[in-house]
Amino acid sequence: MISRYTVRMTYKKADRQNAAAMIDLATRPLDTAAMDAARARQNQLVKPPGSLGRLEELAIWLAGVTGEGRPQVKARVVVAAADHGVSGVSAYPREVTAQMLATFLAGGGAVSVLAKQVDAELVCVDAGVDADTTALEVVRSGLQPSRDLTKEPALSDDDVTRAIEIGRMLAEQAAGDGVTVLVGGEMGIGNTTPATCLACWLTNGDPHTLTGPGTGLDAEGVRRKADVIAGALQLHEPQDPLEALATVGGGEIAVLTGLALGAGEHGLGYICDGLIATAAAAVAATLEPDLKPRLLAGHRSPEPAHARLLELLDLAPVLDLQMRLGEASGAVAALAILRLAAATHDQMLTFAEAGVSG
Amino acid sequence: MISRYTVRMTYKKADRQNAAAMIDLATRPLDTAAMDAARARQNQLVKPPGSLGRLEELAIWLAGVTGEGRPQVKARVVVAAADHGVSGVSAYPREVTAQMLATFLAGGGAVSVLAKQVDAELVCVDAGVDADTTALEVVRSGLQPSRDLTKEPALSDDDVTRAIEIGRMLAEQAAGDGVTVLVGGEMGIGNTTPATCLACWLTNGDPHTLTGPGTGLDAEGVRRKADVIAGALQLHEPQDPLEALATVGGGEIAVLTGLALGAGEHGLGYICDGLIATAAAAVAATLEPDLKPRLLAGHRSPEPAHARLLELLDLAPVLDLQMRLGEASGAVAALAILRLAAATHDQMLTFAEAGVSG
Repeated sequence: MISRYTVRMTYKKADRQNAAAMIDLATRPLDTAAMDAARARQNQLVKPPGSLGRLEELAIWLAGVTGEGRPQVKARVVVAAADHGVSGVSAYPREVTAQMLATFLAGGGAVSVLAKQVDAELVCVDAGVDADTTALEVVRSGLQPSRDLTKEPALSDDDVTRAIEIGRMLAEQAAGDGVTVLVGGEMGIGNTTPATCLACWLTNGDPHTLTGPGTGLDAEGVRRKADVIAGALQLHEPQDPLEALATVGGGEIAVLTGLALGAGEHGLGYICDGLIATAAAAVAATLEPDLKPRLLAGHRSPEPAHARLLELLDLAPVLDLQMRLGEASGAVAALAILRLAAATHDQMLTFAEAGVSG
Repeated sequence: MISRYTVRMTYKKADRQNAAAMIDLATRPLDTAAMDAARARQNQLVKPPGSLGRLEELAIWLAGVTGEGRPQVKARVVVAAADHGVSGVSAYPREVTAQMLATFLAGGGAVSVLAKQVDAELVCVDAGVDADTTALEVVRSGLQPSRDLTKEPALSDDDVTRAIEIGRMLAEQAAGDGVTVLVGGEMGIGNTTPATCLACWLTNGDPHTLTGPGTGLDAEGVRRKADVIAGALQLHEPQDPLEALATVGGGEIAVLTGLALGAGEHGLGYICDGLIATAAAAVAATLEPDLKPRLLAGHRSPEPAHARLLELLDLAPVLDLQMRLGEASGAVAALAILRLAAATHDQMLTFAEAGVSG
């Protein structure tokens, strides 16, 4: 499980302006020549220029991502699951994380069904599940559940390094398998709490404004959760993105940070899901701003912290369907639209081919 | 081509409050028992209740439409094409209508590619194309291109009757073939002008506010088009929806009005596309208000009149992708999302089946 990448975690707090340099990576820029070719093709297809709206933009983006003027979507969904030491912040008991992981693999979870519908592979990662997952076909990380972020750092520096390396390695494998678009998703009872911590830290936001109901807290539960988040940030006062990931993050979030970084390194597109996955991607884009052009926002979640993260990343979501499940579900739904964009771009005739007066 | 339905066009203007009674039809109400069953199932699936957002609502709607607790999507797209007597309102020449119809059938138009991607059949109708279409595999209506609505009624009462009957017959055929969801689309150079006339008439809107650029007019072109629309409405002063369809409508619009009415009669769901198709559906829903629950707005078009029609119909669009092509393209894209809704509803496990703590 050791990749050829090394996340250098021996950073000094004074170096936080330069946190990206701590990670030995280089994001591939989008291929502007392929984008120009795709843009030119869009203007030749049998339709008024621009009339397919976002579908045209998505096709051009995918051209930049893949370096192909007529790009194809080959998609893989990576769902990282982990448990969390923080308690009293979710409507569901902790054992649900492992149960859901098994359900995904059995084909019965939302992400299982959605991924099948849009013809995407599904890979699951045990990023610190509090259960024996040896019987499951998952990528094993060796990570333990995070510790209680209200009392101590959720992860050690070594945990963060390991998690990011696993995410990057999964992106490398995907690129080797011909994948062009990666989608990151997560499962972890309680994980909107660390994700909202990270969102507040990244955007300098107020926990009492940005905390939402997650899977279904009432107003009192939301208030209590906001207190937990504010307390954790005060306790740890993280000084850079990697320290934030360690102190108020979680295993699945750190794996997804690595996955997004890896997508950038290996020339893939990366679709962000809801609050947790987008927080992970935002940590990645803060470490490595060159990553931004490779990110796509799959959807808008009703969680207030998600909207703030999309602003930070300057991303306009493809879908707005009031989805708030996680599991990559919103991003995989957006993949259906990305497929329509790639198909119209590739298969429509030009005015000349169709013999239509332009 | 004669159906067993008769649109009685011998209405008196005084009867306009009662225009629905002029048409011998009855819309099937949604099946509330099936909707209750679907709602109950959604609450048992392995996810927090409501967390799939609009996907859940769509599955419940589809249950009501089909009368099945676990409904399937079998979709057909009907694209009606016609030419228009009004001139100087489009950036494209008139012969493009017939050329595009041939392109759709050859598989090279946007709607051809999109329909294939979402596994929907495509049926094309010559609803008054100004060209010899005998070599094309289209449904023939015998309709001529509409006349110039700035000078005379666009269609005769007989034309409207015939067009609506064809639309209703196509819905009847679809129902007979097991289709559960119909999508209506159109092609017709210049047809945002009659559609905007209808939208202004239906919503009591100002042409200079509701007229948009269509396939690409500049500001001066839009102003001229708004003048044409205002003039046509002043000239004809239609007194009821059928008279509006005749005086300021068009052949493809009237066929789509019939298609939407037929979807209601035969228990299908109907997805509205952009301005033109939604204007047609709005005429249908004005004639027959019971149709409304069977309508779904596929997307939001940037045309200002479209937004007003969605308000009139009280429909929230599934997608907002700045698409403005017509051809059913936005509605067919929404079909991709409807398929995700039906698949998650049908294929996800329940908490009990998955052995997950609820």
